[in-house]
Amino acid sequence: MGVTIKDIAALCGVSPGTVDRALNHRPGISEKTKARILQVAEQMNYQPDHMARSLAKGRTMTIGVVLFDLYNRSFSQLMNSIEAASRQQGYFVDLVLTNKDPENEKKCIEHLLLRKVDGIIIFAINQGEAFNDYLKSLSIPVVTICNYVSDDWSYIGIDDREAMKEAVRYICGKQYERFIYVCPPLAYRGKTNIYTQEERLAGCLEGLKESGIEAQPTVITDKDYIGSISRMDFGSGTKTAIICSCDIYALEVMNHLKGRGLRIPDDVGLMGFDNIDVLKYVSPALTTVEYAVEEFGSRAVQCVIEQIEQGTRTLVPRLPYQVITGDST
Amino acid sequence: MGVTIKDIAALCGVSPGTVDRALNHRPGISEKTKARILQVAEQMNYQPDHMARSLAKGRTMTIGVVLFDLYNRSFSQLMNSIEAASRQQGYFVDLVLTNKDPENEKKCIEHLLLRKVDGIIIFAINQGEAFNDYLKSLSIPVVTICNYVSDDWSYIGIDDREAMKEAVRYICGKQYERFIYVCPPLAYRGKTNIYTQEERLAGCLEGLKESGIEAQPTVITDKDYIGSISRMDFGSGTKTAIICSCDIYALEVMNHLKGRGLRIPDDVGLMGFDNIDVLKYVSPALTTVEYAVEEFGSRAVQCVIEQIEQGTRTLVPRLPYQVITGDST
Repeated sequence: MGVTIKDIAALCGVSPGTVDRALNHRPGISEKTKARILQVAEQMNYQPDHMARSLAKGRTMTIGVVLFDLYNRSFSQLMNSIEAASRQQGYFVDLVLTNKDPENEKKCIEHLLLRKVDGIIIFAINQGEAFNDYLKSLSIPVVTICNYVSDDWSYIGIDDREAMKEAVRYICGKQYERFIYVCPPLAYRGKTNIYTQEERLAGCLEGLKESGIEAQPTVITDKDYIGSISRMDFGSGTKTAIICSCDIYALEVMNHLKGRGLRIPDDVGLMGFDNIDVLKYVSPALTTVEYAVEEFGSRAVQCVIEQIEQGTRTLVPRLPYQVITGDST
Repeated sequence: MGVTIKDIAALCGVSPGTVDRALNHRPGISEKTKARILQVAEQMNYQPDHMARSLAKGRTMTIGVVLFDLYNRSFSQLMNSIEAASRQQGYFVDLVLTNKDPENEKKCIEHLLLRKVDGIIIFAINQGEAFNDYLKSLSIPVVTICNYVSDDWSYIGIDDREAMKEAVRYICGKQYERFIYVCPPLAYRGKTNIYTQEERLAGCLEGLKESGIEAQPTVITDKDYIGSISRMDFGSGTKTAIICSCDIYALEVMNHLKGRGLRIPDDVGLMGFDNIDVLKYVSPALTTVEYAVEEFGSRAVQCVIEQIEQGTRTLVPRLPYQVITGDST
């Protein structure tokens, strides 16, 4: 058991209430007594009991987290970092998964409200004004992550457009003549929130244009993107680069190309995005875009806790990223 | 929006209370009226509102899930399957992560109790009689998964010992002369619950013995197992097999061996366990043990819901597994 307020009170010869006043900087005790109590608390390595604090403040010390699923490795890395940062701050997390279903997302949010979470971190699948109004109606701190909703909410993410543009400009320096862009979520354009994916596509198009590539890339939005690629010929002598909006698509494409006996990058160049941790086991090393997914988690938690505890909303600048030049392009 | 009780009431010309009586088979209405209401409900494809049901029954329709973390890919696959199965049954999940810290695990459980979850699915890091008594004192349905606690609880898992034994017997047919077993969690033997890992080690030892291998394997329990392996010589002509208790260790070992320019399996054989989904992107294909992690999730959810709703505890037989013979051995 850790040190309690009662232990400190006994050692200082004061009441637990007095210790509580000192620790929470409330009036009603002398500066001298307060200083002594704080010193003793520090010496005894006192850790505040967050659960007691929550009861006192009418909080549940719980942050609701709304994610799509944990299949995409970057989502589980994100969840791990959110949980770790929350725990450090004495908060628990309630995870709900929407399975990318807008109606289910609303049910998930309702559930979190019923569970009286203190705030919500959301990777939203809904979008638009009605959804924004809905979020406002909740009267609870909300932080958006990866998918932007509106300026009404703190947003944690990188500049996906600039990042993809930079990566594509790098690829364009490699004498490719044909470009294929793989992004199945684009099929849901206008229906669900695919902000991050749309930004990445825009970045790709801008990157090609700035590099003087006039031909438009073939954009594959088919859920069966491997099927689409399997019908394409890569042996015609036209050097092709396949740019994928996420590493998880790039890994599937890599397996497909290997299965066809095609060499990467000699026959086909391949690029991903996210630098998910499993890439370190895959060869050839994939060209991709890296960002600190752990920082996404810690920033989002910091942001939502500031809103919960101080009522202040911080504008978080877009986080840094880096193009990883692998052996696949 | 789905069909509501009010819709059915309007169509049948009765009050919503009457519809509720019919749907929940409560007395106070004629059999004729009840039959008509149930017929209309079925025709309109009425789906009961689980949240309303929970309020009526004093439940939160929430299953607490206690896991180590989401770093090990098999844990995120497990969580995905638990969440999907729960959602299908109208339940939400509250995920807490213990970070393999026994004290933290108890805090996590306390949190779930405060949140009034209806039942708990736990991959326990605590063990022993005191912990078993503690679980009993909670007076709440508990299902254990992967790490066994006692026969007081439904347990979802495979027979890890038999599975490892079968895999090792397969390896032993490949003329290896030296065996290394990699399992860092064994360093926590007696301190935390490493049931699954101990079973796998026992299976390895039994498999070697049954195959007539007299030399004991070198068992590496060092957290820096790569450091330990880096000090070993594999070029002496003695054919070595490295058996890892989880794929995540095997993948790290594979990277290390490749980095040293060693060929797998020609210079060193390598085996994992779990058949995590990312293996499909890795070559050479890893020899491993597969089991249906999705079934773990659905069985655990089914089991805990039966306890919640019917008060009955099912003994789940050990689930099936399969040795996957890859190219790494």
